[in-house]
Amino acid sequence: MQALVLRGRQLALAQRPKPRPRPGWALVRVSCAGVCRTDLEIVRGYMGFQGVLGHEFVGRVVDGPPQWRGARVVAEINFACGCCGACRGGIARHCPRRRVMGISGADGAFAEYVSVPVRNLHQVPDEVPDECAVFVEPLAAAFEILEQVHIAPGARAVVLGDGKLGLLCAQVLTLAGARVLVVGKHESKLDIVRRRGIEAVGLSGWRQEPADVVVEATGRAEGFSIALGAVRPRGTLVLKSTVAGSVRADLAPLVIHEITLVGSRCGPFRPALQALEKGVVDVRSLVSARFPLARAKEAIAAAGKGGVLKVLIDNPQRQAV
Amino acid sequence: MQALVLRGRQLALAQRPKPRPRPGWALVRVSCAGVCRTDLEIVRGYMGFQGVLGHEFVGRVVDGPPQWRGARVVAEINFACGCCGACRGGIARHCPRRRVMGISGADGAFAEYVSVPVRNLHQVPDEVPDECAVFVEPLAAAFEILEQVHIAPGARAVVLGDGKLGLLCAQVLTLAGARVLVVGKHESKLDIVRRRGIEAVGLSGWRQEPADVVVEATGRAEGFSIALGAVRPRGTLVLKSTVAGSVRADLAPLVIHEITLVGSRCGPFRPALQALEKGVVDVRSLVSARFPLARAKEAIAAAGKGGVLKVLIDNPQRQAV
Repeated sequence: MQALVLRGRQLALAQRPKPRPRPGWALVRVSCAGVCRTDLEIVRGYMGFQGVLGHEFVGRVVDGPPQWRGARVVAEINFACGCCGACRGGIARHCPRRRVMGISGADGAFAEYVSVPVRNLHQVPDEVPDECAVFVEPLAAAFEILEQVHIAPGARAVVLGDGKLGLLCAQVLTLAGARVLVVGKHESKLDIVRRRGIEAVGLSGWRQEPADVVVEATGRAEGFSIALGAVRPRGTLVLKSTVAGSVRADLAPLVIHEITLVGSRCGPFRPALQALEKGVVDVRSLVSARFPLARAKEAIAAAGKGGVLKVLIDNPQRQAV
Repeated sequence: MQALVLRGRQLALAQRPKPRPRPGWALVRVSCAGVCRTDLEIVRGYMGFQGVLGHEFVGRVVDGPPQWRGARVVAEINFACGCCGACRGGIARHCPRRRVMGISGADGAFAEYVSVPVRNLHQVPDEVPDECAVFVEPLAAAFEILEQVHIAPGARAVVLGDGKLGLLCAQVLTLAGARVLVVGKHESKLDIVRRRGIEAVGLSGWRQEPADVVVEATGRAEGFSIALGAVRPRGTLVLKSTVAGSVRADLAPLVIHEITLVGSRCGPFRPALQALEKGVVDVRSLVSARFPLARAKEAIAAAGKGGVLKVLIDNPQRQAV
């Protein structure tokens, strides 16, 4: 099969054997996959990953347990061991022995086929087309905030960053009843949430008022201090950006104002699928470009350009039986 | 009256007029006061404070509303405005217009008398002697952890730092049902909690196991990274140290392991008083030395020496009518 493979720092479309699913696993023919910021970081050496890239996808089960065959699915990306303390404690996403599809120790979805554990599968409702279902993974990461933080009705939330994750977080917080302000640098991106009735402002025009909840989703080291300064005493700062290397930060305000800082990563698929099924989150507006799998390298390059949001990679063989 | 006054960086015993309480305030004759790490920082310039130092004390009301006269009291240190959003929202300790006794904009308790708002007063039960009541303020700061963080029964808690606050936090977390390990550098200090049946280990002999809750109470910049490394995925790091200036820290583990970081400062007096009344927290063992008010400068110097825990300043006039 065709696959976009990272070897050393070399990214290339290559022929790879079709995965053969083990017991408890399913073989999924990928329909559509999404390029994430993390993919770009991985190409630059993050996680030291080698293999097939890609962890956001939707596809159809072509081999595995009979009850799953033919199902249109998305899959959680953390492949947990299932028997350690974390797994038994209900936080399998933090299994210390986990492999992560396209990120750590497991081949990903920028390929014709991908193999995933059956327990990671979620069926996609018919109402959700592929180009929306492919957003389940990042949308779940936005819903993770609601898993971790209680959003009081009418809470003032500021989302710092107008990238894909910021725009999804803003919509999810709005669904939860918060009054959301998105602060970003790109008017065209801010317009996407404005069209949903969400307040948005350019960083330079932002008149800071202490917020109950601030979500740091800039993906930049300097975002942390700006975000910390925007939280009210006893408020919450949700940290979404994983910035490689160390950050110089003054942590004293965190103690003086008794701020709670919540690190937030992958999230629950179910509420993300439900939101897409109900049509209450706009993800289509986030699609900047689509490429066929044969041009996956171009897709990665396009995703790294300024002003670009989501780039999708389509498998032209998706309709094949 | 005699008072220990900071002018510029000069600390000196001086004669000051006895405070005249305004309506809603009480005049308290100080019986005993405690020297806090923050006092030492203030002498070095922290907060730019000028005036009478001291915010940990117990005394007797000599002027104010009739129902308070003669009462033996401690007092919360944040003098809030009582009418802003924070005050109305129930977090008066975070009032942006607050003055803080001996720390910011209000004279403190290293003096014969101190004036405090009546609403800040708490009566001290007869069972609690002065040398214990003087610990209410720092003990309340330890109880603040229980206000902010849910401690599940049997939760594994690590307290990093064997200073006064660390030893109080360890005892409070033990009361709450946690299995506590104190990690410090001073065997004599660790022995204080060991005598209470609390596990304690020297930093060099510490075999780190991921903890549900870690309390950072080292008072040092390097404590943050050590503490962060000791928290389990989805665990909680309570930050008690206010380290002036910025800290270089790698925040990525916070996001990857979805750790919650809780800044924690002043706390509730009531549970602290109750714990002292019941005798379930040992504070007497924390007293390293006592000085009369006339030797308050020596007391400050003594408190800054290595291996010293709490230094008390006694007012010899405490029994005067």
